[in-house]
Amino acid sequence: MALALDLLHTIDAGGRRAQLHLPHQTVETPVFMPVGTAGTVKAVPQDTLESLGAQIILGNTYHLYLRPGHEAIRRMGGLHKFISWPRAMLTDSGGFQVFSLSELRKVTDEGVKFRSHLDGSSHFFTPEHSMDVQIALGADIAMAFDECTEYPADRARAEESLRLTMAWARRSLDHFRAHQHEVPWAADFAGRSQSLFGIVQGGMYRDLRKQSAEQLMEMDFDGYAIGGLSVGEPRDLTLEMIAEVLPMLPKDKPRYVMGVGYPDEIEQYARMGVDMMDCVLPTRAARHGLLFTSEGRLTIKNKKFAEDQGPPDPNCDCMVCRRYTRAYLRHLMQAGEALSATLNTIHNLAYYLGIMQKVRASLEKPQQA
Amino acid sequence: MALALDLLHTIDAGGRRAQLHLPHQTVETPVFMPVGTAGTVKAVPQDTLESLGAQIILGNTYHLYLRPGHEAIRRMGGLHKFISWPRAMLTDSGGFQVFSLSELRKVTDEGVKFRSHLDGSSHFFTPEHSMDVQIALGADIAMAFDECTEYPADRARAEESLRLTMAWARRSLDHFRAHQHEVPWAADFAGRSQSLFGIVQGGMYRDLRKQSAEQLMEMDFDGYAIGGLSVGEPRDLTLEMIAEVLPMLPKDKPRYVMGVGYPDEIEQYARMGVDMMDCVLPTRAARHGLLFTSEGRLTIKNKKFAEDQGPPDPNCDCMVCRRYTRAYLRHLMQAGEALSATLNTIHNLAYYLGIMQKVRASLEKPQQA
Repeated sequence: MALALDLLHTIDAGGRRAQLHLPHQTVETPVFMPVGTAGTVKAVPQDTLESLGAQIILGNTYHLYLRPGHEAIRRMGGLHKFISWPRAMLTDSGGFQVFSLSELRKVTDEGVKFRSHLDGSSHFFTPEHSMDVQIALGADIAMAFDECTEYPADRARAEESLRLTMAWARRSLDHFRAHQHEVPWAADFAGRSQSLFGIVQGGMYRDLRKQSAEQLMEMDFDGYAIGGLSVGEPRDLTLEMIAEVLPMLPKDKPRYVMGVGYPDEIEQYARMGVDMMDCVLPTRAARHGLLFTSEGRLTIKNKKFAEDQGPPDPNCDCMVCRRYTRAYLRHLMQAGEALSATLNTIHNLAYYLGIMQKVRASLEKPQQA
Repeated sequence: MALALDLLHTIDAGGRRAQLHLPHQTVETPVFMPVGTAGTVKAVPQDTLESLGAQIILGNTYHLYLRPGHEAIRRMGGLHKFISWPRAMLTDSGGFQVFSLSELRKVTDEGVKFRSHLDGSSHFFTPEHSMDVQIALGADIAMAFDECTEYPADRARAEESLRLTMAWARRSLDHFRAHQHEVPWAADFAGRSQSLFGIVQGGMYRDLRKQSAEQLMEMDFDGYAIGGLSVGEPRDLTLEMIAEVLPMLPKDKPRYVMGVGYPDEIEQYARMGVDMMDCVLPTRAARHGLLFTSEGRLTIKNKKFAEDQGPPDPNCDCMVCRRYTRAYLRHLMQAGEALSATLNTIHNLAYYLGIMQKVRASLEKPQQA
């Protein structure tokens, strides 16, 4: 068995409170998934992530394939064991990073040839190879190999990109089904297996999105993601695409919007029926000194915080807000201290995870007339 | 009252198990003090330091004076409050950093003129100014302003340097006694005050060391440090100087050897009767991937650890050794991940603090014949 989704309650707007049963963790949804690119949510120890209530984190296939290498991770029992993370994990397909980070890409129907951003070495990724890598990593959820269509893309470009993504989805699924028993933890979780999600693309074209969703559903993935959003398009277009695609997707499978978003966005999308979201924003912004709070955004390096003895967020009870002042966080950043990234990230993740906790609670309540 | 030292047990070799009562903490000695240069033990959150059993940490006067500035820290209630550290603290005098980090120094009997290593701005440190800064920071223990004599130094140079240090010790003490009531937490700890330690210098000349110790004892400091060691001299010379000076110092006051050392050194010096030691070694080495373990030193970046699934130290039960493998720590370092410094530092500090815990336990036991 791959995953199982137990719907607990659904509101009229589409938002649903559910439990997503994965081999390593039953995830309470809607859920926000912190990004742990290279086998670490940058600057935060795993026990702290646990205390923060993170249920599922991401690993990036492209990064882990290049370093330390998926075969090494397979030999060490998979990514969970390698990084000592007992809860759920999801890996992306590597496609996004191949297209955004690597050099000298050459895309053919067969796959993508690229040079590593680390050492310039040459590599070739195909849907089959992405599956092999993701099976070796052994996350609870793997993603089909896709091309994230850029924005803006004209219709011809979006169509061609979608054609590639759909062909690759088919090949991803076939290879995954044939090899998913090779996951390194197969023996530890008898009867449980990885899940594979298909990714809806199609640029900002409604009919292409529809075509994409229908083709993927016909293939019958374990869950469905909406990709190619938050790539530079205006926010109302993001919202429109999500609103368009969500009702097309089956109700009994998880729905994942990739790479979003700001705090108010993740709340809004969760209420519309998105079950899973991930974004580098809370962690990356933290490292640049941008804190998300109940009172808005704080640029912690600002001189006005130099002697501000209030907590980062007076309405937050995270370990950072309980103990440290804005003045101290500003000082750490000014002084280029490593603790700056750690404390800022802990707060931002607490804020994001707290939002989703509140959304889950509100989705459990009977709706008001 | 400044500090009080309760001697619990003394062994023939001179080593003593004691309790050092300071305003913010009763410190079990012998003690190792992690260095928290700019108001943070680099890469480690304060709650982790507490879990590790750190009883007293250092702050560097030079760094904190330059950024965020001692007057700002005074206005915020002192360094303990600013960094949220409720246990004991010690600040150095700023002298060592003025001499080692700053540019264009000009030393006169009056003090030291220097340029900031941060922005080139011009500053003037005198013994009186060092006291004012340290009183504003409000550590439990402050240090007299001294010149750390370099190694090698010929006799004339060591004599002249000592003359300066002794004159500055007198002026430090006079100014400290006149102003110590201005410490920011005076009202919170009625009847308790900061302590000031004198620093024995004299290069590697026994008679100069003796002269230095005698002059300082005549001034009657709250405790005594041995400075100017671990500055490049051979290790048996360090040991000889410590062995020479320790018996000269009063038994009823704490003895602090500054800037030492390797794990076996801190154990050895503690057994000889040194009560307090500090060193950047465990924290700085950690950031460069050097781990101290019961089985020797590990250069964690070494390729041989790439798939080593053992803990950093099989005999260590710190939070890092309980959870993470050598392979993972190697990966974090290879990938330049921030978590590398955090985990490596936590282990090294656990190892250093663990050594001192064992030494304390052994000093409590009745000696064998």
